[in-house]
Amino acid sequence: MLVSTATAIDSSELPGPAPLLSRHERLQRAAAQSEQVISFAGGLPNPELFPRTGLTRALKLALADPSCPALQYGWPEGSQLLRNFVASSLLARGARVDPDQVLITSGAQQALGIALAVAVRPNDALGVQPETYPGALDALRVAKVEAVSLEAAARAYYVMPSISNPRGLPLDAAVRYALLQRAQKRKAILIEDDAYADTAFAAAPGRPLIADLPERTFHVGTFSKTLAPGLRVGWLVAPKSFLHDVLTVKQTQDLQANTLAQAALEGYLSGESYPRQLRKLRLSYRRRARRLARAVAEYLPTFRFQAPVGGFSIWLENGLGVDDEAFFEIALRHGVTFDAGRAFRWHPQARGLAFRLCYSTVAEEQIEVGVKRLADAWAEMTCQRDR
Amino acid sequence: MLVSTATAIDSSELPGPAPLLSRHERLQRAAAQSEQVISFAGGLPNPELFPRTGLTRALKLALADPSCPALQYGWPEGSQLLRNFVASSLLARGARVDPDQVLITSGAQQALGIALAVAVRPNDALGVQPETYPGALDALRVAKVEAVSLEAAARAYYVMPSISNPRGLPLDAAVRYALLQRAQKRKAILIEDDAYADTAFAAAPGRPLIADLPERTFHVGTFSKTLAPGLRVGWLVAPKSFLHDVLTVKQTQDLQANTLAQAALEGYLSGESYPRQLRKLRLSYRRRARRLARAVAEYLPTFRFQAPVGGFSIWLENGLGVDDEAFFEIALRHGVTFDAGRAFRWHPQARGLAFRLCYSTVAEEQIEVGVKRLADAWAEMTCQRDR
Repeated sequence: MLVSTATAIDSSELPGPAPLLSRHERLQRAAAQSEQVISFAGGLPNPELFPRTGLTRALKLALADPSCPALQYGWPEGSQLLRNFVASSLLARGARVDPDQVLITSGAQQALGIALAVAVRPNDALGVQPETYPGALDALRVAKVEAVSLEAAARAYYVMPSISNPRGLPLDAAVRYALLQRAQKRKAILIEDDAYADTAFAAAPGRPLIADLPERTFHVGTFSKTLAPGLRVGWLVAPKSFLHDVLTVKQTQDLQANTLAQAALEGYLSGESYPRQLRKLRLSYRRRARRLARAVAEYLPTFRFQAPVGGFSIWLENGLGVDDEAFFEIALRHGVTFDAGRAFRWHPQARGLAFRLCYSTVAEEQIEVGVKRLADAWAEMTCQRDR
Repeated sequence: MLVSTATAIDSSELPGPAPLLSRHERLQRAAAQSEQVISFAGGLPNPELFPRTGLTRALKLALADPSCPALQYGWPEGSQLLRNFVASSLLARGARVDPDQVLITSGAQQALGIALAVAVRPNDALGVQPETYPGALDALRVAKVEAVSLEAAARAYYVMPSISNPRGLPLDAAVRYALLQRAQKRKAILIEDDAYADTAFAAAPGRPLIADLPERTFHVGTFSKTLAPGLRVGWLVAPKSFLHDVLTVKQTQDLQANTLAQAALEGYLSGESYPRQLRKLRLSYRRRARRLARAVAEYLPTFRFQAPVGGFSIWLENGLGVDDEAFFEIALRHGVTFDAGRAFRWHPQARGLAFRLCYSTVAEEQIEVGVKRLADAWAEMTCQRDR
């Protein structure tokens, strides 16, 4: 199916501030707003899974109090109830941390940024997986830190050990073991981005790195993937020796995480809905993941991928020297989008077409349709190449 | 009145993480939680003035939408409606800015931090008022920037021109004029912290600096003082040449301001309540300010102060070499607290007792009682000194 550019995206009137965004970014925004485009892009959680009723109830209750702490300033470290919740969740996974080590942050991105701010200096080497979360790579660039491989000597290592983005896979056991050995030996810091841990299809996520190297691991988590990202509530668990610096950076960055959402979460988590919410979302995302994997295997047989065990996406590669953003534009004309692979790669020599397909927000019955459109776009691309 | 330590504050069990907070900070926290202490500390807005009904209604409406953008990720620059609102408010005060120049931030603190991140480098000199917002001074320290006076040559100047914290006064007209001349001549940057502008008792706040030096002024604002700080929604208006850097720093810091509060504000500001809210809070704070000024003039006649024309506080000085935190502990035993002056001063030679009295949250009928307790504490302090 070829969606006419006129009806789908008017590229002469792309949304977003033109001087700030590239053509590709503006095309992405336009596509996100178009109903004719099936979007495998963005990595958003599915809004159908937001616990709207539970959060609305919690918010109403919090706002009914005339002294209304939910609208007032709070302490920089965040809600004690949420800090206890994080400590208990980690304990259940084998990591013993003091609630005082938990800082409630404005999402996982801030947690990651604070960890970088206190643990590394400009020009330090930081080990990362070959493909990883683009927001982390952006933060490394702003921090002027040099990305190197997980196998290299480095001041610190940034990893997504339980469920990676974009692959939706845990760190290989041997790689994990070697990483812990290396960090131990070289007294390196680990920054463990556990944002997707609770989306693991097989219920409970595994043992976190902070359980194995508590004195040098920064652990990053969030409610964005399991409840709602618009709340902007995440957390950073820091080694005790870094707590003072962590709190100072947090306070100077934005004083505190928003009290309104923290109050909503306090109310919501005090009820009994969260375990049910987790079961529901794991089933939903697993179903979509399987459906997408089947469709990719059938319609895009020349691409390599591994079936994810959690998260929101599948990572596709085919090793061909095809420009991902050029392929994006062809796909967009076919009424389908994805996330171009370059944003996930840090290595200057990373070659070969790769991209991320997110299944999280696509209507289930649209998954095959979208992959077929992608196959058509790929046929057009290869046809162009062959000419 | 002497409040017994046993009932008021048990200093052996101070709240807050002990290894991270000083004794003074922990005493402040304990005092803030004690009902027997009259607190002139903290600089919080009065929760009685939070528009709970309007915000609750706006939140319920936003959460009723099944696609629920209020709980989803949003663009880093923030809500277009809020950006337009900020641009219109500035236009009404004589400053013409493009809504594209407005970044919605996680409170004014983040706006200030981003302005510092893009406008100054470590070791730069930054001009500041003799007493100013402690959060700004903390941010300077973290940014490794050297504070100098407004009259000195500097890369940038940080000022609160419409309503200052802690004095509640506008920048003197001659100082303002000289500052603009200096910035013009030296091509220096202005960081205009306008957080308290809308609390100006005399209705409309004055012409902002950004109206006079648009190409080099960063303008910082917030809904924290007029609506509710727990929302954590503020803004940064940046010169066009800095927009790209500003957006990059925002995105790497925390992706975006929380969507939930932005949605609540969109709903609230689309109604007609805000002008009424502003009138109400200006009257309320003006009444308290006058009452506090009268009481201070009567019971603490040896202290110098100026009656504020906006904001939440009065700044008291007496030039004596008395330790502000020592006086705080005596005041606390008398059942009253304030903000010790040192946090507002950057100059290493700043001498003489000074402190901030916030009238914003004290029950009106308690204002005189509180000042009398302070006078008793001061009598005890001077008595100790004279011995």
